[in-house]
Amino acid sequence: MKTSLFAILALGALASPGLAQTELPADTDLRQAALEWFEPIPDTPQAPTGNELTPERVELGAKLFFDPRMSLSGLFSCQTCHNVGLGGVDGLTTSIGHGWQAGPRNSPTMLNAIFNVAQFWDGRAPDLAEQAKGPVQAGVEMNNTPENLIGTLNSMAAYVDGFKAAFPDEATPVSFDNFARAIEAFEATLITPDSAFDRFLKGDDAAMTEQQKRGLAAFMDTGCTTCHSGINVGGQDYYPFGVVERPGGSVLPEGDLGRFTVTATADDEYVFRAAPLRNVALTAPYFHSGAVWDLREAVHIMSSSQLGTELAEPQVDEIVAFLGALTGEQPEIVHPILPVRETATPLPQPMVE
Amino acid sequence: MKTSLFAILALGALASPGLAQTELPADTDLRQAALEWFEPIPDTPQAPTGNELTPERVELGAKLFFDPRMSLSGLFSCQTCHNVGLGGVDGLTTSIGHGWQAGPRNSPTMLNAIFNVAQFWDGRAPDLAEQAKGPVQAGVEMNNTPENLIGTLNSMAAYVDGFKAAFPDEATPVSFDNFARAIEAFEATLITPDSAFDRFLKGDDAAMTEQQKRGLAAFMDTGCTTCHSGINVGGQDYYPFGVVERPGGSVLPEGDLGRFTVTATADDEYVFRAAPLRNVALTAPYFHSGAVWDLREAVHIMSSSQLGTELAEPQVDEIVAFLGALTGEQPEIVHPILPVRETATPLPQPMVE
Repeated sequence: MKTSLFAILALGALASPGLAQTELPADTDLRQAALEWFEPIPDTPQAPTGNELTPERVELGAKLFFDPRMSLSGLFSCQTCHNVGLGGVDGLTTSIGHGWQAGPRNSPTMLNAIFNVAQFWDGRAPDLAEQAKGPVQAGVEMNNTPENLIGTLNSMAAYVDGFKAAFPDEATPVSFDNFARAIEAFEATLITPDSAFDRFLKGDDAAMTEQQKRGLAAFMDTGCTTCHSGINVGGQDYYPFGVVERPGGSVLPEGDLGRFTVTATADDEYVFRAAPLRNVALTAPYFHSGAVWDLREAVHIMSSSQLGTELAEPQVDEIVAFLGALTGEQPEIVHPILPVRETATPLPQPMVE
Repeated sequence: MKTSLFAILALGALASPGLAQTELPADTDLRQAALEWFEPIPDTPQAPTGNELTPERVELGAKLFFDPRMSLSGLFSCQTCHNVGLGGVDGLTTSIGHGWQAGPRNSPTMLNAIFNVAQFWDGRAPDLAEQAKGPVQAGVEMNNTPENLIGTLNSMAAYVDGFKAAFPDEATPVSFDNFARAIEAFEATLITPDSAFDRFLKGDDAAMTEQQKRGLAAFMDTGCTTCHSGINVGGQDYYPFGVVERPGGSVLPEGDLGRFTVTATADDEYVFRAAPLRNVALTAPYFHSGAVWDLREAVHIMSSSQLGTELAEPQVDEIVAFLGALTGEQPEIVHPILPVRETATPLPQPMVE
């Protein structure tokens, strides 16, 4: 079925390259084809493996996520680079970190990140808990140590109580592992259901515009789905960037070998996790380099570097319209009131050596 | 009446300096004396002069307050230094700004700032709208220009619509003045009513502990109220820091002449607006220098520098307990979903020259 619809779509799209719109399939056919590649985002959060979404744990995770005292300087929280009001990103080419250092890669969104196969652009963290341990320790980001972090948490009675409530059966509730698990629990709630695309997948023919439907057809037809599929329309596997034609060094900097640094396998040079495209209209700039600000341009680059083709303008418009249909309901987060520092709380250390 | 109760309180406090607790007045006498100096925080926000708290204006102000794109680098928002989760401060000695510069003074809270006689430590802004124009332009803070800011706002349809809705009768709704007025409207809602002190003032004898009541008596008796009175327990007028004995240079840096830089009057050297003490237990570190992390130490410094006395330990404990009774209900703010950048939106400029 997938193949046969593909053939039909391909005929429509390729009949008059550069001129015509993608042919509009019947809604039922389009939905059926789409459901072979994609899944809707569930309406309610699901617990990550080995974790629980108890209200106490999620609430603790929210506090940790928003607390700038988790960084050595006292300036940066998870929220700084993964802003809940900005589609889960910071809107910078690469993030600004401790001492005004520029981070090596663009900050990816934590929204729906629970649905990715692994975390970071190179997938070096298997889950969100492991991911959460990275930036707090990275010298170019929050520049903290687990020891100083745990000292900070243990110094505040409200945090100690929060950890006890979130991890009630543990002998040492305040730990770096539980810090990460609480953040993972909170982030697992940061999903964006009910996008136009989700509603279409679930049977609402009127959820997407005609142009968005043509874009969905073109997205499948031209082969975008080879890398971008699953619940997150990406984020499900690893692929070489520049498989057909390597883009310029500003988009694909030579020094960043991607997944090679994780696997040390030559085949993994310039391999990255396919970008999850949920809410992509909110998450400029694009690519691990953050070099591209315009979604149209990003689609053009993908088409030449990955598909080896120049998409016609109508198809680019359609695909961009379809990508807009991936914007879901953004999470409504009450900014947590954070525990009050106490006499023993380590002082912030903004000094740069 | 104020004088006579004072005499009674003074007798109690001074009878055995360094040894005894402050004498506990009858609740009705204590309340009556307190109401001569203080006012409870109103339960609902009030519009600042020349402004209106329409839902549209407050909502717009919240977005502007939380939007890091108001800074040139894209890193800093009002919320960075005036964190709604941290009592309205950043918990740093002095704030970190553009290019990792250290700000000249400790970040004061915006909670209840509507009740201050003027804004900034030196009162150089008459109101919150005028205040809001400062940090966005300060080179050591957000380092933006009104032109770039207005360009940013005008580039996003959702902001343009937001300004139209917030300032419906104006020919040019998107303006630097209205940017500031919207933030002022939002900040006017950031009040913290219902502290133990407020409840006591309103007639609830059980709202404060005995120690807090002794502290309130001591606060009035020892003369703290000379500078810290009114609805904000401070913030209502200007006073020399070190009127009796100048504290060390780390607490009162020689180079910061305070209000002198506003008035150019010799009498205003080292004069500052009395710190508003609402939520002071949440807002360490203390003083314009941010040099003191411990509230007990701050009380000791005030007592020696301003009152010319060494308060006895029991009185310090009492006053610190009373200051804890000034912690009100913290505002519950849903983090706003911010407008999406568009093609014309100016890029962030994190570069440091």
